[in-house]
Amino acid sequence: MSEDAHARPTRDAPEPLYDVNIPTPTHAERARTLVAQISTGTLCTLALEPEGYPYGSFVTFAFDDGNPIFLISELAEHTKNLARDPRASLLVAEGGSADPLANGRVTILGPCTRVEGNCGSARAAFFAAHPNSRYYADFRDFAFWKLHVDYVRYIGGYGRMSWITKADWRAAEPDPLGPSAADMIAHMNADHADAMVLYCKAFSKATEITSASMTGVDRYGFDMSAMTPKGPRPVRLAFDKPVSTPEDVRAALIFMVKDARSKLG
Amino acid sequence: MSEDAHARPTRDAPEPLYDVNIPTPTHAERARTLVAQISTGTLCTLALEPEGYPYGSFVTFAFDDGNPIFLISELAEHTKNLARDPRASLLVAEGGSADPLANGRVTILGPCTRVEGNCGSARAAFFAAHPNSRYYADFRDFAFWKLHVDYVRYIGGYGRMSWITKADWRAAEPDPLGPSAADMIAHMNADHADAMVLYCKAFSKATEITSASMTGVDRYGFDMSAMTPKGPRPVRLAFDKPVSTPEDVRAALIFMVKDARSKLG
Repeated sequence: MSEDAHARPTRDAPEPLYDVNIPTPTHAERARTLVAQISTGTLCTLALEPEGYPYGSFVTFAFDDGNPIFLISELAEHTKNLARDPRASLLVAEGGSADPLANGRVTILGPCTRVEGNCGSARAAFFAAHPNSRYYADFRDFAFWKLHVDYVRYIGGYGRMSWITKADWRAAEPDPLGPSAADMIAHMNADHADAMVLYCKAFSKATEITSASMTGVDRYGFDMSAMTPKGPRPVRLAFDKPVSTPEDVRAALIFMVKDARSKLG
Repeated sequence: MSEDAHARPTRDAPEPLYDVNIPTPTHAERARTLVAQISTGTLCTLALEPEGYPYGSFVTFAFDDGNPIFLISELAEHTKNLARDPRASLLVAEGGSADPLANGRVTILGPCTRVEGNCGSARAAFFAAHPNSRYYADFRDFAFWKLHVDYVRYIGGYGRMSWITKADWRAAEPDPLGPSAADMIAHMNADHADAMVLYCKAFSKATEITSASMTGVDRYGFDMSAMTPKGPRPVRLAFDKPVSTPEDVRAALIFMVKDARSKLG
């Protein structure tokens, strides 16, 4: 498993405008957070015919203890493929950015096998994510299948990518702010653009800016794009301590506005 | 390549409320129409490591004479995979329905190889679909790759699925109404619900209905969901002759309203 390094001309890579050593989600955390927000993806199996071809099919899924669960019919091509060869992967891709390659995606690889016997936890996880599936779950040709995660490939957009080990995947948790991050970002950019400028001026080297907008928020802190005289530049700031709810974020951001105002005099 | 037939209890399958022999797009036409509206999907390749695993990755694509074109970096996993084994597939899935499994999707299989020499048509097709790709197309590590279609799997939603032969794929054309169908359907359902009831009563066996809404439109005709005393039922009606523009559809639908009114007296 090699790491990537697109061999781009570096020109004069500018110095970061913030402390890059502040707490930031790991790739494993980012990947777990991404897949937790999404419930459809592409299952890749090895085709019976044309023999050995990688075959992509659309699936709904849920997660049971970090492993993807599918509820699929034995009549479907992917199920026939898995019955012969369990090697599989699941691609989960997020939307959001107008530039599709700037969006994050995760490929999860491992053997995918039928859940035998009491499939209580797989069943509960799947029904929670797909309530309507109760309708066909007991059809004779349907069964639960589980992809046992061995390897994970994470691509978070341009230049942010790595292989995640099974141990890191299992140890990581989805960010508790994942489900509410988009709404918080929209709210901050709509109603609190001034606060973002204050944060940059008080707590980063981006002091000569005309505007700033939030681009991400997680339990450890938040990311902004600040407009400097030389164009847009990223700025990340950490919360005092990790947060776990939107209310925590609100309190932390209000505190930081007061702190910034007193610091800037 | 076997055809599917989900072994569902048929109960008493009701008689269709319309002439099922009227012109209808073939699966090849439906599949070509679907992929023509979408420009991102999942490329499935055979991984180097874990060796032989089917590997799904997010890609942007365009079509050049019915074959998918990719602009990918030799540093990316999928490109390394293809360089060793060209067997590949591309899954293209549409959104739209709240029930994800009711949406259409197409899997295109064939060898995917680097476009050598003058890649004029591939380049032109890709730039037309992804204008921003001009920025990185000439980076040393990027090249155009083409998936040479051998087999196509089409799933149009529940119970509508088949393998499409290479010859049928190549002979079919995307429906000329594809790019405007969603807008036309929204317009008809917002402003002309009464007309749909008239169509059903005059031209189908769905005479005892309380409402009807458009669910699809193509060059040959249009589909509705009609609310009968026994629940929603599908009704399809053909245009007098195939159409090719939204203006043709408008004229045909206005003519059919007049015809329906005179027929219903």
